[in-house]
Amino acid sequence: MQLHSYFRSTASWRVRIGLALKGLSFETIPHDLRADAHREPAYLALNPQGYLPALVLDDGIVLTQSLAILEWLEETWPEPPLLPRHPVARAKVRAASLVIAADTHPLQNLKVRRRLEALGGAELARHWCRDMIADGLAAFEGLVRHTGGPFAFGPAPGMADILLVPQLANARLFGVDLERFPRAREIEAACAPLGPFRAARPEAQPDFVGPPVLGSSAGGQPLQPE
Amino acid sequence: MQLHSYFRSTASWRVRIGLALKGLSFETIPHDLRADAHREPAYLALNPQGYLPALVLDDGIVLTQSLAILEWLEETWPEPPLLPRHPVARAKVRAASLVIAADTHPLQNLKVRRRLEALGGAELARHWCRDMIADGLAAFEGLVRHTGGPFAFGPAPGMADILLVPQLANARLFGVDLERFPRAREIEAACAPLGPFRAARPEAQPDFVGPPVLGSSAGGQPLQPE
Repeated sequence: MQLHSYFRSTASWRVRIGLALKGLSFETIPHDLRADAHREPAYLALNPQGYLPALVLDDGIVLTQSLAILEWLEETWPEPPLLPRHPVARAKVRAASLVIAADTHPLQNLKVRRRLEALGGAELARHWCRDMIADGLAAFEGLVRHTGGPFAFGPAPGMADILLVPQLANARLFGVDLERFPRAREIEAACAPLGPFRAARPEAQPDFVGPPVLGSSAGGQPLQPE
Repeated sequence: MQLHSYFRSTASWRVRIGLALKGLSFETIPHDLRADAHREPAYLALNPQGYLPALVLDDGIVLTQSLAILEWLEETWPEPPLLPRHPVARAKVRAASLVIAADTHPLQNLKVRRRLEALGGAELARHWCRDMIADGLAAFEGLVRHTGGPFAFGPAPGMADILLVPQLANARLFGVDLERFPRAREIEAACAPLGPFRAARPEAQPDFVGPPVLGSSAGGQPLQPE
């Protein structure tokens, strides 16, 4: 399999964790979002939306949207599970995952930041992102407060942990006060030493060029794309 | 089951379609978002995020996040299916659904509109929403262009149709040019006469008060919340 990815893309990061948790190997095809490489015709032919990641299966089928890819992984390689067995328990994990995937990340991605910067400058965009991430993490924290832990929904990592960990990296970047979210920090600490989470980190990727730099995303380094 | 809902909330609308397609009856508990009823302590006790919908099962369990609820519906009442059988086909339907649920709707919901209005007025917010919806529909259209139809992924409605139909109502509200999206219009026309889609429409809800009014969402009528 080939994963079209960017080291700093949190949506790509999610799929990297999922693939690693399932013990699957893949080739990374990096796209430099700083240079809008995801907007080049060759990539748009693969994924017309132009977002990362895209997973190309060995038979050439292209899968997009990180949550859809994680569900496909779960259905194709059930072990170790990313979701619990009981439908209600699955709904709880998916709800927490969607709090990040739908209610948080899209409100702070590169597209939104660029539009906000054009509207009112980098500081405006940064405050927006900080507030949106804080709101999302507060909602997530509410859903995992009484699950036992140390992971989001119990003694093993799963889909919600996969969504949370990359989002926390962005939270730090935008100056979100993580003291407010003790469960999120506990989950991150439980995930950090695990091999699959270590392998999926931005700094472990072949296209890694350095730590993020706070500044305008219009030129220079975007803080975090897609 | 009880569905905490608002007639004009597209996320609630999705779940109404899903419940109706599965042939399930439910009691509607309306929350007037115009009056911020979803922010009242009684509702926050049920769903701390304060978003609609929330589905309360007969045993008191509360499910949130429309996509998680649709997946739960599918796992609990498999017929008629909202997703195809093969994992790759399921991933395609989920990807199209997420284009609406993650990449489109959160960028134009009440929270974002209110913040944009505070930033630069109603006209700025309206242009933002129009552009974000148009981008999302373009991505959706690309994913369903060659599926055969008339529904999003073939001869029967499913999850992607459930996501698309309410989003098209918002597209019209914000003046998106739907001529650009022939497949989306074909899908909508295929869904419109079906009983479950008719029953889920805003104007068929007990809390319906009238058609949407274009204007500020800060006071008066919000165009479309959550």
